[in-house]
Amino acid sequence: MRSAIGLISTLLMFGAAAPALAETGLSPADAGRMASRIEMLSAFGANADGGVDRVAYSEADLAARAWAMDLMRAQGLQDVRIDAGGNILARRPGTMPGAKPIMFGSHIDSVPGGGNYDGDVGVIAALEVIDLLNAADIETRSPLDVVIFSNEEGGLVGSLALTGAMTPETLDVMSAAGLAIRDGLKKIGGDPDRIDRDVVKPGALKAFLEVHIEQGAILDEEDVDIGVVEGIVGIEWWDVTITGVANHAGTTPMNKRNDALLAAGKLIQTVNTIALETPGRHVATVGRIKAFPGAPNVIPGRVEMSLEIRDLETAKIENLFDKIERASGKLAKEAGVSIVFDRIDVASHPALTDESIRAKIAAAAQGLGLSYKLMPSGAGHDAQDMARVAPTGMIFVPSVAGVSHSPKEFTEARDMANGANVLARTILAIDAQD
Amino acid sequence: MRSAIGLISTLLMFGAAAPALAETGLSPADAGRMASRIEMLSAFGANADGGVDRVAYSEADLAARAWAMDLMRAQGLQDVRIDAGGNILARRPGTMPGAKPIMFGSHIDSVPGGGNYDGDVGVIAALEVIDLLNAADIETRSPLDVVIFSNEEGGLVGSLALTGAMTPETLDVMSAAGLAIRDGLKKIGGDPDRIDRDVVKPGALKAFLEVHIEQGAILDEEDVDIGVVEGIVGIEWWDVTITGVANHAGTTPMNKRNDALLAAGKLIQTVNTIALETPGRHVATVGRIKAFPGAPNVIPGRVEMSLEIRDLETAKIENLFDKIERASGKLAKEAGVSIVFDRIDVASHPALTDESIRAKIAAAAQGLGLSYKLMPSGAGHDAQDMARVAPTGMIFVPSVAGVSHSPKEFTEARDMANGANVLARTILAIDAQD
Repeated sequence: MRSAIGLISTLLMFGAAAPALAETGLSPADAGRMASRIEMLSAFGANADGGVDRVAYSEADLAARAWAMDLMRAQGLQDVRIDAGGNILARRPGTMPGAKPIMFGSHIDSVPGGGNYDGDVGVIAALEVIDLLNAADIETRSPLDVVIFSNEEGGLVGSLALTGAMTPETLDVMSAAGLAIRDGLKKIGGDPDRIDRDVVKPGALKAFLEVHIEQGAILDEEDVDIGVVEGIVGIEWWDVTITGVANHAGTTPMNKRNDALLAAGKLIQTVNTIALETPGRHVATVGRIKAFPGAPNVIPGRVEMSLEIRDLETAKIENLFDKIERASGKLAKEAGVSIVFDRIDVASHPALTDESIRAKIAAAAQGLGLSYKLMPSGAGHDAQDMARVAPTGMIFVPSVAGVSHSPKEFTEARDMANGANVLARTILAIDAQD
Repeated sequence: MRSAIGLISTLLMFGAAAPALAETGLSPADAGRMASRIEMLSAFGANADGGVDRVAYSEADLAARAWAMDLMRAQGLQDVRIDAGGNILARRPGTMPGAKPIMFGSHIDSVPGGGNYDGDVGVIAALEVIDLLNAADIETRSPLDVVIFSNEEGGLVGSLALTGAMTPETLDVMSAAGLAIRDGLKKIGGDPDRIDRDVVKPGALKAFLEVHIEQGAILDEEDVDIGVVEGIVGIEWWDVTITGVANHAGTTPMNKRNDALLAAGKLIQTVNTIALETPGRHVATVGRIKAFPGAPNVIPGRVEMSLEIRDLETAKIENLFDKIERASGKLAKEAGVSIVFDRIDVASHPALTDESIRAKIAAAAQGLGLSYKLMPSGAGHDAQDMARVAPTGMIFVPSVAGVSHSPKEFTEARDMANGANVLARTILAIDAQD
């Protein structure tokens, strides 16, 4: 948690940073306006817990998208439109003919039972930058493209489509709203049959930038203002099947069992121990488990469970998995069971951000008198898809106690304004560069 | 496993036993007919593994019950009916006015993914006895009541009802078929609101007898034909709820997790270790587990699982549970979770069989030239409820390798016939006694 002293020191630093900010001709972001827009957005799909149920393709999602498009038009953005992948796009024209656009934005769909900051902060920060540029009457050389990605929470759908990585299989996946992604895209004005039409080709953008709440507690606990994201971790998933012998729980002596769930319990601990004891910032998680037949009076003969490993380096993920698989071989032998790992084809590869953009974000924070820290993103973001086609940067702002995907997530208005200020400055720095 | 030599010696003993069997006027049980009926029964709820999914109240259970009632009627049994507790009852009248009935039978519902012998053998043996008595034109003094208990695998529901031990709480328990026991009873023709109507009062029966496969491997491994059951272990069930904190699997560092599933894995091992290290013939099992929300990318915030402990002594069960509960308190503290045990009201108390009936079963086996052995039942059976209201006996026949609650369970036709022969002789011995 941020201390009162931290707050005061930040305010003092703000004062010192005013000249640096003034150099750009921009006024500081309006924290009150940003908080007010977050509040307006939170009305769409508001639930009793103070969060939102605004899963992609729901009526709440549709209404929030219409609100955002109205706001974009009111800001004077041009060509406000929905692309084939359901993304909302709007342009602030540049002055230099043929200049590549700088794109920035995030998403406004939520998980079921979600909060009011995940994604939303990045969209509101992007719109705030437009207001700041308009107010200062600053023209950029590059066109500025604001984007609101569709269905981020359901598998980065919008950015997959925008970067040409959408597959027919993904279009068939059932969304949280209860309809296939294909039908969801149609519902929100996309065109799943013509995804190719709107693909952004590698090299077509000058840069992509995203502001997002940090979904861990690192910034909040360490009282740091801005996270300069080094990259977005890769994610690998396995289905793990443990096969023993189902037997009667009353008549099979304790020392004559091949209990698949007992072995699963040991494997869950082994995964945790290996992840804890291996140095690094990786994580490994077992989140799903099912025992068969699953009756209190039958020794489980089979257990199916998930294994997820995340890290910034693919080699690290594979190294951890190798350790786990080796340990499981020993464990299986001792428990009289077999353990099989099947890799699932929904993996996402690690995506590194652009080094030069990282430096510009850091310089922007420094110029504003804000503390910052290089860090990986443990969560997936649309930026990881964009990193395949454009130099990409990502700016984290603190989320109190690191809470996310929950009605309890909260980011202070001051921190949202910091994010918008860093975003604006970074955009201008990129625009100034040939 | 039974050796070929064992088989030959059994056949030789059979030859020697023929005169003893003839004394009763009964022909030997028809092993082929019994195997054929087992096969017919196995069609109801047959699954791809060669076993059955015939949990109580399922469509397969309903169909099997209808088949059994048709067979009872075809045998000339009278008053074939379903009682308030969902038990199927049928009577072969006796000759002595006012004589107490002798009841015998078992169950035909299965666990999920069950086999073709557990319960079924006892029902088919009971029906075989009726055929043998009919063929020999033997009348008994006592009426003979054949019973097929309802929902044995879901907590001895039918015998609880029949013996007046059913509680409203048990009626509310969710059954494996996905409906409350109360609604399940209605579905199969019972009357949960009038359970009291059909209660068998203590002393109302002359005896209760049940044939069942031995669900351990003792008879099979020691090549013994008949198990004379000394008593049935008590069973206690708990719902265990482990509550941690659900969080993002990507952004929550390994050392900042309150992972309910990790704690559950440790508790499963603790249960196993305590059961292994405490001297005795008790067993303790976790057979069911569910993690919430149950997604590969979310750290489980809650786990619900089952705990079952069995022993011939109630005090031993309580002592084991105390050890487990104490250990879980320490474990919960270390893991940053809470662990709550809720005792389920489907417990069954240890039950001793009647000494005089045990002697009659042993004498019947001896008279038939069969080897026999006194032994406890590690599995629960309806006989344990019946033991509260009637002198009770239980006859075990071997199950190959002791497998049960599995599609792989198998009892040879010869052994089923031995069980029916011992049952018939024991019934006649009880009937002959004033």
